[in-house]
Amino acid sequence: MDVVTTVAALQRRADAERAAGRRIALVPTMGALHAGHASLVKIARERADMVCVSIFVNPTQFDDPNDLAAYPRTFEADLAVCRDAGVDVVFAPDAREMYPDGAQTTVEVGALAEPLCGASRPGHFRGVATVVTKLLGAAKPHVAVFGEKDYQQLAVIRRLARDLLLDIAIVGAPTLREPDGLALSSRNRRLDPESRRQAVVLVRALDAAEAAVAGGERDRERLLALVREQIAAAPRARIDYAELRDAHSLALAPERLDDPTVLALAVFVDSAPQPVRLIDNRVLHPRTRGGLSS
Amino acid sequence: MDVVTTVAALQRRADAERAAGRRIALVPTMGALHAGHASLVKIARERADMVCVSIFVNPTQFDDPNDLAAYPRTFEADLAVCRDAGVDVVFAPDAREMYPDGAQTTVEVGALAEPLCGASRPGHFRGVATVVTKLLGAAKPHVAVFGEKDYQQLAVIRRLARDLLLDIAIVGAPTLREPDGLALSSRNRRLDPESRRQAVVLVRALDAAEAAVAGGERDRERLLALVREQIAAAPRARIDYAELRDAHSLALAPERLDDPTVLALAVFVDSAPQPVRLIDNRVLHPRTRGGLSS
Repeated sequence: MDVVTTVAALQRRADAERAAGRRIALVPTMGALHAGHASLVKIARERADMVCVSIFVNPTQFDDPNDLAAYPRTFEADLAVCRDAGVDVVFAPDAREMYPDGAQTTVEVGALAEPLCGASRPGHFRGVATVVTKLLGAAKPHVAVFGEKDYQQLAVIRRLARDLLLDIAIVGAPTLREPDGLALSSRNRRLDPESRRQAVVLVRALDAAEAAVAGGERDRERLLALVREQIAAAPRARIDYAELRDAHSLALAPERLDDPTVLALAVFVDSAPQPVRLIDNRVLHPRTRGGLSS
Repeated sequence: MDVVTTVAALQRRADAERAAGRRIALVPTMGALHAGHASLVKIARERADMVCVSIFVNPTQFDDPNDLAAYPRTFEADLAVCRDAGVDVVFAPDAREMYPDGAQTTVEVGALAEPLCGASRPGHFRGVATVVTKLLGAAKPHVAVFGEKDYQQLAVIRRLARDLLLDIAIVGAPTLREPDGLALSSRNRRLDPESRRQAVVLVRALDAAEAAVAGGERDRERLLALVREQIAAAPRARIDYAELRDAHSLALAPERLDDPTVLALAVFVDSAPQPVRLIDNRVLHPRTRGGLSS
């Protein structure tokens, strides 16, 4: 496994791989790697001959400096995860390499980036869209893999790749979960034991909503009330947002659900030294489950 | 010469060229081709094995709908120019191909795009940066060639390519001029004979400023007064902007010029049925010419 720190070196490697007729997959990460990332690598490997994992904690996507400072950095452990997962190249640039002196170009996605995390984290998706465009430029992949846990991010990046006419397939990877259902996330390691226990309310709320839809519930507000009730069961949890939105456009769902709808959650869980913000989601299919819709 | 109208077909062609070890050059244009464009093709040819000219009148870079409607469209003549210039592929997409249904991604360059044409044409450079990023994604060139007549545009695109870590060389091509000095431009054909005659004041003003600097003048305001006086010699000309700015950062030049400085002009020339906006520029070198600077 090679560790590359400069854009120029990564591009030379990409050119060589492509010249040899080999397909390249990129798995962009912010490090603090876990089994979820390893599963992205596995999916990348199925679709390419060379798998590159980028590790870069992108400052421009953090609206909260405390969150940036607290973001876990575990580079040596990350390299071990990559080695175990069979990664070919780790791209680990510094900020100067990704944002050259005088950098002033931004990439922005419109309506898809406005609600949810776009509303509660101003500038977040501009930072994501900009750094992902850069990473795609640096790694020149045929395919890039992103986790479905970050549902809106995946939608934004799919849109970006299509809109900018990038000849790169964007692949979503299913969310991996702990035995109790908690979605794997680098932020989970910041939960103290009691907060970790209570964090399970996110997936409990998703399960409850899915079960309700399967049981015939189509009313948006009743479903959201059910979600809020589930979250309220955890005294340390405070909802940032809990919304039902069209699974494709992310427009607000109608009062009576019909099309595929994403239930998107962001929840702060109190934990020392500071609250941890967790997200999760589930796509609900009102037409194909439950049997009660017309 | 092949004419390609879809992004997918152009990308397949680019992949085949690259797989064969051939270098690709892109010359992005809005059609209405003239000898200036042919000179860009010549420069492209020197740097690549395959030259692609794109012809696309990009609606998102026009702040003025009248200007968009009046922009000359001469597709058959353009193909003849391309054929004569030895172009390999003409990429002529429609707007739907460049802006797929639901497109909502924009690329924006910061400080470099704010003054001059950025100030007088709101949104112009967002449109330029976005469409150029798309064209680079579609054509996958090793090199792209842009005219120096659009000085700020060239600076914006150089910055964009560096910032987005695109492995694409951006090459500037010298401005071609008519025998009387008028810079070649697709807009010139919209000048009636008297306006065409008066349009020469732009280059006269540039010449006068350059001569003054060569003669030792370093005072910003006196140089600009000289420029305004030259333009005023043409009754049909009205200055949109006439500015002296740092040749690299495009920051306002200091009161006493020292570093390389671009004199950038945009002038409306009255002509039936509507005024024609012309731009031109000259880089002044206060330190290396004139001999009077310290």
